[in-house]
Amino acid sequence: MKLLTAIIKPHKLDDVKSALESYGIQGLTISEASGYGRQRGHTEVYRGAEYTVDLVPKVRVEVLVDDVDIADVVEVVVKSAQTGRIGDGKVWTQHVEDVVRVRTGEHGPDAL
Amino acid sequence: MKLLTAIIKPHKLDDVKSALESYGIQGLTISEASGYGRQRGHTEVYRGAEYTVDLVPKVRVEVLVDDVDIADVVEVVVKSAQTGRIGDGKVWTQHVEDVVRVRTGEHGPDAL
Amino acid sequence: MKLLTAIIKPHKLDDVKSALESYGIQGLTISEASGYGRQRGHTEVYRGAEYTVDLVPKVRVEVLVDDVDIADVVEVVVKSAQTGRIGDGKVWTQHVEDVVRVRTGEHGPDAL
Ligand SMILES: Nc1ncnc2c1ncn2[C@@H]1O[C@H](COP(=O)(O)OP(=O)(O)OP(=O)(O)O)[C@@H](O)[C@H]1O
Ligand SMILES: Nc1ncnc2c1ncn2[C@@H]1O[C@H](COP(=O)(O)OP(=O)(O)OP(=O)(O)O)[C@@H](O)[C@H]1O
Ligand SMILES: Nc1ncnc2c1ncn2[C@@H]1O[C@H](COP(=O)(O)OP(=O)(O)OP(=O)(O)O)[C@@H](O)[C@H]1O
Ligand SMILES: [Mg+2]
Ligand SMILES: [Mg+2]
Ligand SMILES: [Mg+2]
Repeated sequence: MKLLTAIIKPHKLDDVKSALESYGIQGLTISEASGYGRQRGHTEVYRGAEYTVDLVPKVRVEVLVDDVDIADVVEVVVKSAQTGRIGDGKVWTQHVEDVVRVRTGEHGPDAL
Repeated sequence: MKLLTAIIKPHKLDDVKSALESYGIQGLTISEASGYGRQRGHTEVYRGAEYTVDLVPKVRVEVLVDDVDIADVVEVVVKSAQTGRIGDGKVWTQHVEDVVRVRTGEHGPDAL
Repeated sequence: MKLLTAIIKPHKLDDVKSALESYGIQGLTISEASGYGRQRGHTEVYRGAEYTVDLVPKVRVEVLVDDVDIADVVEVVVKSAQTGRIGDGKVWTQHVEDVVRVRTGEHGPDAL
């Protein structure tokens, strides 16, 4: 099992969710974050406002994904989150040792 | 060392905390999240209100756990978070390479 | 690639950011969290107020770091987050399988 984490522009969340749904992903977790990348101190536009402050609002998306799908799902997220402008974000993947679906107690791929 | 992450129903947080404390767990981290699982678009009840929107509020619980305890702690969290209704959440575990207790600089199991 | 996660006192965030910048780290992600460690139930001071409640506000800092730098960066974060008082926090590291810079599609160390 893998965990994909994406830090994206908030206004791209709906595109990312639609793209994941079209791929067949059935669940995800969202949370608020902020941060900066290589252009810290430079200006980034967010909701029409220019940010020169260093912590720009972002959304974190987390998706538990079967090993066989992870390369495809990374591509789906990267493509759907892209605007081509600086600050588009990062996507990373990590190994997950076990997953449990709380309601049923199922472990592993059946838990997704 | 392992990291357990649980996405649970907010009203189950006190049960999960009590169960972890009874087991002997001495620390944890909480944050706000939202998400959906397999019944996206279906109705889920949260604090007496029906949600048909797709992002249902959840709480993330993270616990750093010694290798020898991780299977038991997963069970403790799953059991204490269960309501038997849809949306009960996911629990997953990951390998952690190193942990440091900031105040003392201790590394590894002593850092918990 | 590694992921460093730090749970720190909120008022130490600027010190941690400056220390990481001095080291040459070019990006990071911040989010809100709360939690407790070994002194649950004991009193902890936060912004001049005493907390006897169990969930003390903390900041989560996440940094994607090249393998060669991770030991140094852990040290930088631990040192800059330290006050010497209880509740200073935890720092942990995990292996990351892949990272992508969303704007360019670059993978691996070039994606940082
Ligand atoms: N090294 C890093 N570690 C953790 N999070 C990071 C890192 N770099 C960037 N991020 C997160 O990703 C968000 C977006 O970063 P960003 O897309 O600006 O990266 P970048 O490398 O500067 O790419 P670009 O040149 O396209 O702007 C940041 O706000 C931050 O939350
Ligand atoms: N594949 C996934 N990746 C990341 N987070 C997920 C995933 N699936 C579910 N979650 C998170 O767990 C929360 C609860 O999911 P949920 O319990 O509804 O899963 P489920 O598989 O639909 O199980 P059930 O049939 O019992 O409802 C979601 O709101 C979301 O935050
Ligand atoms: N085992 C743990 N798992 C996950 N998060 C933890 C754990 N222990 C502590 N934390 C997080 O780190 C924060 C600070 O913990 P804290 O520094 O009090 O740890 P401690 O072991 O009690 O050290 P100290 O004795 O210096 O207080 C907590 O509020 C919580 O968010
Ligand atoms: Mg940038
Ligand atoms: Mg569900
Ligand atoms: Mg403590």
